[in-house]
Amino acid sequence: MKSKNTKIPVKTYLSEKEMPTSWYNVRADMKEKHPPFIHPGELRPCTAEDLYPVFCKELVSQELNQTDKLIPIPDGILDFYKMFRPSPLIRAYSLEKYLDTPAEIYYKFEGNNTSGSHKLNSAVAQVFYAKQEGLTSLTTETGAGQWGTALSMACAYYDMDLTVFMVKVSSEQKPYRKAVMETYGAKVIPSPSSTTASGRSILASDPTTNGSLGCAISEAIELAVTRDKCRYVLGSVLDHVILHQSVIGLESKIALEKYGIVPDIIIGCAGGGSNFGGLISPFMGDKLNSKNSTRFIAIEPASCPSMTRGKYAYDFGDTGRTTPLIKMYTLGCGFMPAANHAGGLRYHGMSPIISKLYHDGHIEARSYIQTDVFEAAKSFLRTEGILPAPESAHAIKGAIDEALACKANGTKKTILFGLTGTGYFDLAAYASYDASTMTDYVPTDEDLIPGFASLIPFKE
Amino acid sequence: MKSKNTKIPVKTYLSEKEMPTSWYNVRADMKEKHPPFIHPGELRPCTAEDLYPVFCKELVSQELNQTDKLIPIPDGILDFYKMFRPSPLIRAYSLEKYLDTPAEIYYKFEGNNTSGSHKLNSAVAQVFYAKQEGLTSLTTETGAGQWGTALSMACAYYDMDLTVFMVKVSSEQKPYRKAVMETYGAKVIPSPSSTTASGRSILASDPTTNGSLGCAISEAIELAVTRDKCRYVLGSVLDHVILHQSVIGLESKIALEKYGIVPDIIIGCAGGGSNFGGLISPFMGDKLNSKNSTRFIAIEPASCPSMTRGKYAYDFGDTGRTTPLIKMYTLGCGFMPAANHAGGLRYHGMSPIISKLYHDGHIEARSYIQTDVFEAAKSFLRTEGILPAPESAHAIKGAIDEALACKANGTKKTILFGLTGTGYFDLAAYASYDASTMTDYVPTDEDLIPGFASLIPFKE
Repeated sequence: MKSKNTKIPVKTYLSEKEMPTSWYNVRADMKEKHPPFIHPGELRPCTAEDLYPVFCKELVSQELNQTDKLIPIPDGILDFYKMFRPSPLIRAYSLEKYLDTPAEIYYKFEGNNTSGSHKLNSAVAQVFYAKQEGLTSLTTETGAGQWGTALSMACAYYDMDLTVFMVKVSSEQKPYRKAVMETYGAKVIPSPSSTTASGRSILASDPTTNGSLGCAISEAIELAVTRDKCRYVLGSVLDHVILHQSVIGLESKIALEKYGIVPDIIIGCAGGGSNFGGLISPFMGDKLNSKNSTRFIAIEPASCPSMTRGKYAYDFGDTGRTTPLIKMYTLGCGFMPAANHAGGLRYHGMSPIISKLYHDGHIEARSYIQTDVFEAAKSFLRTEGILPAPESAHAIKGAIDEALACKANGTKKTILFGLTGTGYFDLAAYASYDASTMTDYVPTDEDLIPGFASLIPFKE
Repeated sequence: MKSKNTKIPVKTYLSEKEMPTSWYNVRADMKEKHPPFIHPGELRPCTAEDLYPVFCKELVSQELNQTDKLIPIPDGILDFYKMFRPSPLIRAYSLEKYLDTPAEIYYKFEGNNTSGSHKLNSAVAQVFYAKQEGLTSLTTETGAGQWGTALSMACAYYDMDLTVFMVKVSSEQKPYRKAVMETYGAKVIPSPSSTTASGRSILASDPTTNGSLGCAISEAIELAVTRDKCRYVLGSVLDHVILHQSVIGLESKIALEKYGIVPDIIIGCAGGGSNFGGLISPFMGDKLNSKNSTRFIAIEPASCPSMTRGKYAYDFGDTGRTTPLIKMYTLGCGFMPAANHAGGLRYHGMSPIISKLYHDGHIEARSYIQTDVFEAAKSFLRTEGILPAPESAHAIKGAIDEALACKANGTKKTILFGLTGTGYFDLAAYASYDASTMTDYVPTDEDLIPGFASLIPFKE
């Protein structure tokens, strides 16, 4: 849709009074909800009680709430949000000029905080509720390190103990990511470790293992359920995380409405789905109520194509098979994603909300190879100045392709994409791209067989 | 001064219409100007012609302009400024609460751009003028890497070739800083190099040298003067750099005036003086015209105390003794600053504008040891969320001390400090502080003797 006003500023910041005071729960506007979690031992829908030993109560309540449209954001969380939000909505004038496109391109930039990404939006909320409930410590896992950093910042602010199980190879390759978390007071344990039974068991069978996200999750959950006043927290996939991330979409929508803009296309990268889900939520709500005709495009790496080549099935959330069963697009919990610099997108499954919306045809999905993504990132960083995270660059590539389609067709569309974070800790990947040593990997159909074979035969 | 309004937002962003359209030239309001550059060979004041072979014409004109109060910012620079400015003026509610102080603390945060610091304000301007003048390439030196990164970003945007001589030990210790510059298309040469005569001469006498800023400057200037359509650019010290950085102070002043606030105290870290000079410029102008009674405090590291323990004398700007003579507070161009993590503050001299204002009693100066600075940084990052650069943390320590003095005296002052940048590339220093392996160094009077002995006996 064409904007009313042609003098749109490069950056739009909401005032504190304009900032959203409730999160938006897109499930309330979905006619068909996604199927429930299934208890892995008893093969029945999970109840709140099943989840309490792992997650704090308010988060369980938000996880299971499929009916309330608006969930008020507590004042304590709003106070923290004001320290790093609003994030700017940016008009990409310089990129538009470089592409010579008639399209208007906007992006919501979530990287201007020390965690470097949107992850802080949910970290703050999760730590706030844990503190309110009288918990004294939290555990989590981290791979690329953005989630661990965000959680460390929130725990430092609320004075909460935090133990982060960091995939061993990542903690060795990214010592400074580890150092940030420790600077904020977190205890960072390379995983697998001798701290937990599951860690010891893996070390016993393979003392030189590099570790994996699946193993780190198992260790973090084990520590949480065995410790007093301690819970586990997760940075993506789950419904309550997407709820918190709806602040991205809400701020974007309020800012765009100032200029009378309803985006024609909204694009985001999708790993677990929290950023994409949060960005599209309020716009999707309008679409489900026939108030707009926006297209939504999720971008994933060709190396880990859970939506474009996965199955919509019940599967475990972790490789250790300890979580409830989740109905989602998945490559199978036994799928081992290839080494890919966009670590945040290397997850075998996809948020159940996004999966359901995709399954019902409300969302499109597309995958890109890594070198194409870095080529787009380079065009972006030279014109717009911001060094994007490789994850975020998937969305940039999507936006550039749509803008070039506009140029080819002579149509003027309004494109909004989510720029989730910065690439300060990903320079080895950029250096590899610049040196032309970066390789692409696209699994063959045969490569996908072991993952699909790991799916359990549960039928609804 | 007490603010009119008690509901001041955490972050204040100016709208595009409120952003300054001219830089402010504080020299115009100084009754006594600082003494001129002296030609090192002929011992007479430098003319514009003396400077043209090294710097582009518009920058020479700005350097020598001591009379025009306002210098309009060209539209092309304003367009780039809009991509990363305005920077936020932040009310440190959380730090105030932690300190339990009656003081109101504000900081102007310049770190929310990919260069990670205020350096981009001048980099953009210098590259713009070079492009306008028909130059095709630039050279510079970088130590810690913030200036080199900022200049790389600006050169990528304006499509200008850039060669950065990076102190060899820094390029080895900070490979990712080098990678950022290369990602933006700059050619980064570890210095000393075999590219220049001065580099080859140093390598011949000491093949295993670590390099130094002084040597990198010599190489960058040599390449600039021997190449067609090429000039050298510098990121601090000079008057035209402080002019460009006045945008920091101007934005701060406009934002504070919305709330009727005139700061009682303004604090900044000072290495070459560009950030401090830019922050205080418009407030200093008012003070010189008796419109306020603000105190200005420059903070420097105890390991490199050019203002607090240096001499006000004519000295070379570089250790290679190739620049004009500059009247400034200096430890002597032969002073070798000790290894100190705040690389951006390791300079033997100080901006001539700041030196003159300090000499005339308009500015106070103070020095801190490194571990005290990191202690302040830790309090800040846990309460305000932002991971500060070690340089910037000197100003934080100054602000905390003044706020605690308010608490002790029961007085309510308004404090503004400059938070120049982020510490993402300084995590080795934070890790060293956390591990209690960080050491402090304060030169004895005897340690300062060789530096003072290097001062030439020039008399005005």
